[in-house]
Amino acid sequence: MLIVREAFFGVSSFSGFQKNLGIAKNILTDRLDKLVADEVFEKDICADDSRRYEYALTDKGRALFPVLVALMQWGDKWSGGEPPVNLRDKKTGKKIQKLKVMSKDGAPLKMDDVTVSPGSGADMSIHTRLKPK
Amino acid sequence: MLIVREAFFGVSSFSGFQKNLGIAKNILTDRLDKLVADEVFEKDICADDSRRYEYALTDKGRALFPVLVALMQWGDKWSGGEPPVNLRDKKTGKKIQKLKVMSKDGAPLKMDDVTVSPGSGADMSIHTRLKPK
Repeated sequence: MLIVREAFFGVSSFSGFQKNLGIAKNILTDRLDKLVADEVFEKDICADDSRRYEYALTDKGRALFPVLVALMQWGDKWSGGEPPVNLRDKKTGKKIQKLKVMSKDGAPLKMDDVTVSPGSGADMSIHTRLKPK
Repeated sequence: MLIVREAFFGVSSFSGFQKNLGIAKNILTDRLDKLVADEVFEKDICADDSRRYEYALTDKGRALFPVLVALMQWGDKWSGGEPPVNLRDKKTGKKIQKLKVMSKDGAPLKMDDVTVSPGSGADMSIHTRLKPK
């Protein structure tokens, strides 16, 4: 998610990710390769320099936006510091709302207000785990 | 986040996390220790067996619920399979809403509709990264 966050911040080059995240090159290579294999990023030859690659979020990658926002808002609330970044609606310049898990009727729900049960794609392990006790 | 998900599914023992996640014991120990240090989990002597520990989400850990829901909904949409679990409002039994990033006026926002700028807690690295080009 840190790599996805950097891409949202405008980073697209290997060296950019490396500088901002401060992780070893081989680890970053592995993670980027995995994100490309998972179709979260696509890797293309850089338009300005054909010896280099650039990494762009795919539609699937951009769809992680709610995850990113939820993590950033959680960090803002619980890290004890001031928010490192502000997220604003491009059109109005106003700060975005806080993400809330909501019921069909629009009531905010906390973890304890929600039940989890096997879905139509549940495997045996999920069924075993979620068996009523 | 996988450990937080397991806790949401009702797991509290080391052996339960280990069985469901299938990761090496030393890696799980490291991750749980880190989550306890970060105050996402608290570790207590098991009520039923004083030789064992149990792990429970703290308020800070339970506040990761929107992150968890966002990740699960992203997986449901993009994994290509049927949803492994259903999340329902405990009171009504109805499925919860899909999380949406929203503007102050309640309009849904995608990643490209949102700008990011340094916040009051931004360090030099954030200022450099988010400098208008």
